[in-house]
Amino acid sequence: MADLIEPRTLKGFRDYPPELMIPRERLLEKAREVYRSYGYAPIDTPALEYAEILLGKMSAEAEIQRQLYRFKDNGGRDVALRFDLTVPFARFAAQHIGKLGTPFKRYHMGPVWRGETPQAGRFREFWQCDFDTIGTESNASDVETALVIHDLMRALGFERFEVRVNNRLILNGLLEELGLAEHAAALLIALDKLPKLGRDAVIAEMTEKAGADAGRAGRVLALADLEGSNSELLDRLERDFGGNAKAADGVRRLRELLDVARTAGVPEERLRLDLSIARGLEYYTGTIYETFLLDAPAGYGSVCSGGRYDNLAGLYTKQRLPGVGASLGLDRLLSVMEKLNLLPKTATPAPVLVVQFSPERLGDYQRMARALRAEGVGVEVFPEPKKVGQQFKYAEQRGFRVALIAGPDEFAAKTWKIKDLLRGREDSDYKGETVAEADVAAAVRKMLEAGA
Amino acid sequence: MADLIEPRTLKGFRDYPPELMIPRERLLEKAREVYRSYGYAPIDTPALEYAEILLGKMSAEAEIQRQLYRFKDNGGRDVALRFDLTVPFARFAAQHIGKLGTPFKRYHMGPVWRGETPQAGRFREFWQCDFDTIGTESNASDVETALVIHDLMRALGFERFEVRVNNRLILNGLLEELGLAEHAAALLIALDKLPKLGRDAVIAEMTEKAGADAGRAGRVLALADLEGSNSELLDRLERDFGGNAKAADGVRRLRELLDVARTAGVPEERLRLDLSIARGLEYYTGTIYETFLLDAPAGYGSVCSGGRYDNLAGLYTKQRLPGVGASLGLDRLLSVMEKLNLLPKTATPAPVLVVQFSPERLGDYQRMARALRAEGVGVEVFPEPKKVGQQFKYAEQRGFRVALIAGPDEFAAKTWKIKDLLRGREDSDYKGETVAEADVAAAVRKMLEAGA
Repeated sequence: MADLIEPRTLKGFRDYPPELMIPRERLLEKAREVYRSYGYAPIDTPALEYAEILLGKMSAEAEIQRQLYRFKDNGGRDVALRFDLTVPFARFAAQHIGKLGTPFKRYHMGPVWRGETPQAGRFREFWQCDFDTIGTESNASDVETALVIHDLMRALGFERFEVRVNNRLILNGLLEELGLAEHAAALLIALDKLPKLGRDAVIAEMTEKAGADAGRAGRVLALADLEGSNSELLDRLERDFGGNAKAADGVRRLRELLDVARTAGVPEERLRLDLSIARGLEYYTGTIYETFLLDAPAGYGSVCSGGRYDNLAGLYTKQRLPGVGASLGLDRLLSVMEKLNLLPKTATPAPVLVVQFSPERLGDYQRMARALRAEGVGVEVFPEPKKVGQQFKYAEQRGFRVALIAGPDEFAAKTWKIKDLLRGREDSDYKGETVAEADVAAAVRKMLEAGA
Repeated sequence: MADLIEPRTLKGFRDYPPELMIPRERLLEKAREVYRSYGYAPIDTPALEYAEILLGKMSAEAEIQRQLYRFKDNGGRDVALRFDLTVPFARFAAQHIGKLGTPFKRYHMGPVWRGETPQAGRFREFWQCDFDTIGTESNASDVETALVIHDLMRALGFERFEVRVNNRLILNGLLEELGLAEHAAALLIALDKLPKLGRDAVIAEMTEKAGADAGRAGRVLALADLEGSNSELLDRLERDFGGNAKAADGVRRLRELLDVARTAGVPEERLRLDLSIARGLEYYTGTIYETFLLDAPAGYGSVCSGGRYDNLAGLYTKQRLPGVGASLGLDRLLSVMEKLNLLPKTATPAPVLVVQFSPERLGDYQRMARALRAEGVGVEVFPEPKKVGQQFKYAEQRGFRVALIAGPDEFAAKTWKIKDLLRGREDSDYKGETVAEADVAAAVRKMLEAGA
């Protein structure tokens, strides 16, 4: 038929079928649970905003300008799709903070759009999961941000990960001492390239573009190079930079963060002081966070990053709103988990299939299904009275775990046949068992627990 | 400052602050739970699609053409924001059905965009929560759709509601008998206006625009007028229209739907045969569903509607994909609940606030908080060591339920002070109680349960 429209998605966009969407929903649910458990409240903002608001005072050369989905709406307004959740939050905070009050803790999970050149694991539409505390400079919120990241990774099922922290104040203190404070931004950009470009290239950039000579560039790099245990590093920093008020404050805040986290029960090896992390973003002014999965393939980078900033919403309001927060890179994490084979292979969110054997018994099938659902067990009733073999094949393909069957004999005896489909796959002699109707829920639960 | 950008949202768009977003997330969570419990699997599709795909063969005069957010992207593609979740699902199904297999059950919850004239309760960005079963004509799926709607409304906390069902086959059978089959679409559009325009206007429209004379228009209306109990109506329909194959099939399917639902445990008064519901949409061909809250203010309409269709994705594939499903109108439901005063008045998802009394004890505050979080209780630690009165005021404003306090005396005695903030508001003599550290979790739980 010549007049069919070819079904396709736009370049750089993708569909999420159940096998990907089931784990993605699980990640979102866990993130939501952890954020809420710390008292962060959900907010939402529109996908579309005035372009003026999203672009702020961004320079015309900024990469984001070229990546923006920007157009005139039917009313002639210059609008664009949000490219992150931070700028909309700044606008939201400026608009509503009088009513919300401070401190204000929010999380926001949703899609953002950037017309980047598509590449492996990078899409033009992707989700961010941000959480922030604004309206306070208290280090208690910096500490809490580290605890949230830790508890989030645990809730997502990871054991082997490391939250790396640093504090921008230490570097800023050093730059002050070296008389390089005004070049801080350019130096940071250069320093952030250290893992990619190596020492020499970074020193070259610092001397060419950031006003440093080789000696002072070397001292900046020497700070990033410092290694040792958390307490060794803290002591060393105190000794070397304690004389500078900024740096001393940074060290004090980091020490408190690590102390409180230990007292609060976070295992020490999960929280590591790392003086090499700089985070390219200019707006961070204090604590910085990155999170690494120790088993991730090389090159995967941080899955949850953030930091403290001086003033969130200065473009939109005179009220100064300092804050601290971080963002879970949902789609990056999903792609690491896919690589590490951590995603469940199932296309059904319900583990139990009721076979439709006798169509005139549909009411009884749904009655049993509803009873199990009321106990929290997901149950699908197959919609057609196809051959039992075909229904089992469907169950197998979708990844159901348990099948329930009842025909005339079972109804007469008030029993159900129940079959563990995982076991059935491995043991061809296994034919399932017959249980009394009243015992079905317990038997299903037992099978699901055994296979978990 | 002249150079501030005024923080504002686009006309017809809105922010969701915590007081609105907390109940909205709860509705989404409950819908997700119910859909999953029936084996519907989640999918997601991009917000942006080729305009060609979204518009299909829609006539240039269709209202949606004017409402579409359509533009050229940076690659010169003609793109648009989706205006519903049905068209993207049709495209998705056509593209992936070979791999997904049939029957395929999916749910999809997400925002859609329409540049409508904004009015009370209507926004240019709003969420839909669709669920559908495709690839089968089995009435078992029609029955299940009704069960899902019922269980969804119960899960959302409603007792007094009615799912109204009809079947388009009955009307189509009558039109066949009357020789009006070719005018079915125009007659449906007229009939759908009955509650708004009344009898005479509808008859006038049927005779002027839909090829009927007054006598035949009257017979069409007489069908919509039929009243009685479910079984009275079924018997009457069988007697009057049983001779027409189409109508007889419609009656048979409705009878089975009502029988199965009763056997499966749905109270009879919640599922009502209503021959007056027509649903304007032309593409429904069988069972139709609407859902009414009995306590909703007049004029609020159906909060969950849907029906059976012959072929979902005919624009994109030759494979015929019949299906049945419905959609929860999330934002309409929220606005009814707001009217009925059913939304909780809280701006925090965590019920417990730990007061920061001694800043040097932050680690102990977070240790207690993490212990409670591990038991599923949300706890916020106030970020600053402000005066206790100020911290209580914050707790009051945000809607916290319980406060925990510990200072030097309590730490020395290994105890905590715990205060029920609801009780504190009503009883000014109540000062809370002191409990041993090991008993805090139980005491918190007791207070939360008492106030629930």
